[in-house]
Amino acid sequence: MKEDTWKTAITKVEPNKVCLRGYRIDELMGRITYAQGVFLAIKGELPSEAEAKILDAILVSSVDHGVTPPSCVTARTLASTGNPLNAALAGGILAISRHHGGAIEDSMRVLQEAVRRKGEMNRTSEKMASVIVREYSERHQRLPGFGHRIHTRDPRTVKLFQIASDLGIASEFVEMAKALQDAIEEASGKRLPINVDGAIAAVLCEMDFPPELANAFFVMARIPGLVAHVYEEQTRMRPMRHICSKDHEYDGTPDRKL
Amino acid sequence: MKEDTWKTAITKVEPNKVCLRGYRIDELMGRITYAQGVFLAIKGELPSEAEAKILDAILVSSVDHGVTPPSCVTARTLASTGNPLNAALAGGILAISRHHGGAIEDSMRVLQEAVRRKGEMNRTSEKMASVIVREYSERHQRLPGFGHRIHTRDPRTVKLFQIASDLGIASEFVEMAKALQDAIEEASGKRLPINVDGAIAAVLCEMDFPPELANAFFVMARIPGLVAHVYEEQTRMRPMRHICSKDHEYDGTPDRKL
Amino acid sequence: MKEDTWKTAITKVEPNKVCLRGYRIDELMGRITYAQGVFLAIKGELPSEAEAKILDAILVSSVDHGVTPPSCVTARTLASTGNPLNAALAGGILAISRHHGGAIEDSMRVLQEAVRRKGEMNRTSEKMASVIVREYSERHQRLPGFGHRIHTRDPRTVKLFQIASDLGIASEFVEMAKALQDAIEEASGKRLPINVDGAIAAVLCEMDFPPELANAFFVMARIPGLVAHVYEEQTRMRPMRHICSKDHEYDGTPDRKL
Amino acid sequence: MKEDTWKTAITKVEPNKVCLRGYRIDELMGRITYAQGVFLAIKGELPSEAEAKILDAILVSSVDHGVTPPSCVTARTLASTGNPLNAALAGGILAISRHHGGAIEDSMRVLQEAVRRKGEMNRTSEKMASVIVREYSERHQRLPGFGHRIHTRDPRTVKLFQIASDLGIASEFVEMAKALQDAIEEASGKRLPINVDGAIAAVLCEMDFPPELANAFFVMARIPGLVAHVYEEQTRMRPMRHICSKDHEYDGTPDRKL
Repeated sequence: MKEDTWKTAITKVEPNKVCLRGYRIDELMGRITYAQGVFLAIKGELPSEAEAKILDAILVSSVDHGVTPPSCVTARTLASTGNPLNAALAGGILAISRHHGGAIEDSMRVLQEAVRRKGEMNRTSEKMASVIVREYSERHQRLPGFGHRIHTRDPRTVKLFQIASDLGIASEFVEMAKALQDAIEEASGKRLPINVDGAIAAVLCEMDFPPELANAFFVMARIPGLVAHVYEEQTRMRPMRHICSKDHEYDGTPDRKL
Repeated sequence: MKEDTWKTAITKVEPNKVCLRGYRIDELMGRITYAQGVFLAIKGELPSEAEAKILDAILVSSVDHGVTPPSCVTARTLASTGNPLNAALAGGILAISRHHGGAIEDSMRVLQEAVRRKGEMNRTSEKMASVIVREYSERHQRLPGFGHRIHTRDPRTVKLFQIASDLGIASEFVEMAKALQDAIEEASGKRLPINVDGAIAAVLCEMDFPPELANAFFVMARIPGLVAHVYEEQTRMRPMRHICSKDHEYDGTPDRKL
Repeated sequence: MKEDTWKTAITKVEPNKVCLRGYRIDELMGRITYAQGVFLAIKGELPSEAEAKILDAILVSSVDHGVTPPSCVTARTLASTGNPLNAALAGGILAISRHHGGAIEDSMRVLQEAVRRKGEMNRTSEKMASVIVREYSERHQRLPGFGHRIHTRDPRTVKLFQIASDLGIASEFVEMAKALQDAIEEASGKRLPINVDGAIAAVLCEMDFPPELANAFFVMARIPGLVAHVYEEQTRMRPMRHICSKDHEYDGTPDRKL
Repeated sequence: MKEDTWKTAITKVEPNKVCLRGYRIDELMGRITYAQGVFLAIKGELPSEAEAKILDAILVSSVDHGVTPPSCVTARTLASTGNPLNAALAGGILAISRHHGGAIEDSMRVLQEAVRRKGEMNRTSEKMASVIVREYSERHQRLPGFGHRIHTRDPRTVKLFQIASDLGIASEFVEMAKALQDAIEEASGKRLPINVDGAIAAVLCEMDFPPELANAFFVMARIPGLVAHVYEEQTRMRPMRHICSKDHEYDGTPDRKL
């Protein structure tokens, strides 16, 4: 008996044959998108058409957010000291942690608990949201997924919820997120709008992803942005510069329409 | 004069507005796929339909390759000692280096040089390939992008080249890769088929990506696989186990058709 | 008013002058050891002679533990794929996490709480230890810092406690660790000896280091071992090998005496 | 025959016995310092008393250099987003790369080649240094290990060379470093003094360490500084702040004497 024989259910590799979750990779190629591959790898089954579309929208929503996020600062700093791309990306991904992207996971837990309690207690979303906002307020805690340093009405949230609605994906979790937004405003008089983390959280809940994997979606979404920043740093900046993320100006392509 | 004011051409962030390479992110959402977003972020322009499709095929081809690649071993080992997902992924990405995925970049440089010299010397691809294979042989070097530990005819290569051909993307770089494959066989009597790294390299050359960024495509492709492995390790295995990648068995979904 | 002016109390850098916690670095050089520098950097004051000696003993105790620990597997795997030394070390350090080295922090918290409760309840260490062992047993939890995969009597624990005792450093935390060891044996009939993590934890408690920094001492101690392994991997092994940590043999210098 | 049996010459682990390079770890504890352990782990033999002392001086010289180095910026940024200590340290170590600390390795190679060519060509250090400075000047390259952003006369260099001289360790590599400094001044009219990287490089050459491991000494030296910065960030700053390393003030212990 070999003590170390262990099981895996993800990919089977044989000579000239690679099967992901049972499907031949070469059969998947050309027929599914990356977003569908992501869903298949993680969930074990292919997504519906609607799920594939909303997953693409999630991934596109967070491709980049400029030079100020810590993941960008870290990746650029590592590039600036002479690291190869893989190390700069690894550092950028380390930065995607509790306070940077982590709100997606926290928000998923809040929404899951809220919907569960709503069901158990047979309440409306509005009532349940009021209770939860009051609980957080009494504990002097902030609800994750609401408010943004820069955006007072995050355009990504608006669009993600609209797409989710059009696709028939928006259900009780999106409803609860909106109910919480309203309840916060009612309790505090301030509008703390659902930010992109909160919006992604609601949609991931609708697709029944585990909160433990919330971070993965932000990481995947942001990698292309980090690649672009690392490449710009390597090709446009002198090595070992002081990188102060606030002191920058955008000099790229002017605004344009699709 | 502020010494540290610096320029970036990737993303402009204003209150309630985020523009990636000039396009509003919320306008991109729902209209482009992740692969298109990757292309836009890195190249600064949206891909053609054919480029978007082949990029999806590249990303899907390398989503996972089982538990033996060092990126998987590293990510699982880090998960096993109790790391959160981001740190396990960061470690996995560090493993994607010169000898693991790095053949894409090396192969791109070989193909670019081969096609350039072919043009300068006005040779056929066959002639140029023979020269290059002889040069490598004389230097006792292996050409990157040919041969595989497991696959004698990599199904991913076959499919990627077929899709590239159908989309009208396969041109002189794919031709050169095939010419090199033939020249190796002629010179050595052995068939060392183009592996998936070599095939991706040829297609990235066709789309004029810089070799410095080759690694980025393998990293993006493999992240979902690493996420699945980290999650399996966290939910199915006991912490701090000895992970010997060879001693595993696949017990997932049996072979199935799309 | 500059929003971003912030304070640091660690090091002052001026032209031709670097002061660590108030002392000129060039004045420290040649007069203090690395261990004293570690203490000064972290605590802000130089250690007593006894503290400096026990800190050296802690750092030497964990310089290396062969090829099986996950930090070594990770660092060697990263070296094997072609990473430079810094990336291989970074990966090794990521592996030093909750289940690998993390017992030092957990054990410090147990010992601190045990000593605090003992004081509050005016008990002997023996009585307090019995209570705690029973509590853990009832919660079906294992006390961190006891037992080892390989060692039934960890030689490093024995020596560290002896040195701590000789230096007058061993006091109520070392006493509590030993009391817990005895209480475990009494309750279960099994001897689960204090392991090196538990022993280091007790001594760090005696020197009043915060548990949050426990991991730092293991990281610092293990770096030279990881450096040696990375260098051995780079100079002695072929790239991209399957690394199964169990299948190794030692072929170094035979046993010798100081 | 097991394909994967492999050899290691660093540490032998048996039940209740751990031997580093042949010596029992518990016998080493209390009798050698960390610096001696570093030397033993890496070189396989214990250092002389002089080598142990100069190694301590090297490690102390680079314990910290304030908040502006990229390793500190990276570690603090990662701490600021909520990472645990090990991940923040891993990121800091990634930053210690070609342009940050990497000059030690580059400078070791320059010094080794200079001393070798001096021997082969039977020149004085002065003559050899003039030739090398001219070669670099003609190639428009900078010699690594000379000049500093802040220090015009690096106090750490002065002290390290003095200690090396007192201990009888300074020999032909230190002589060559000084000859290069003079030759630069003669050729350019500017004094570009040996910086701490160049000084460490010369002393590591005297002890016959391979240049490939140069980075290891900077990493080990800087870890305690990074630990102090991560802890200060975690305990004194709010999460997710913009970290601009220039906008800081020192508010720690005032200057004091040993």
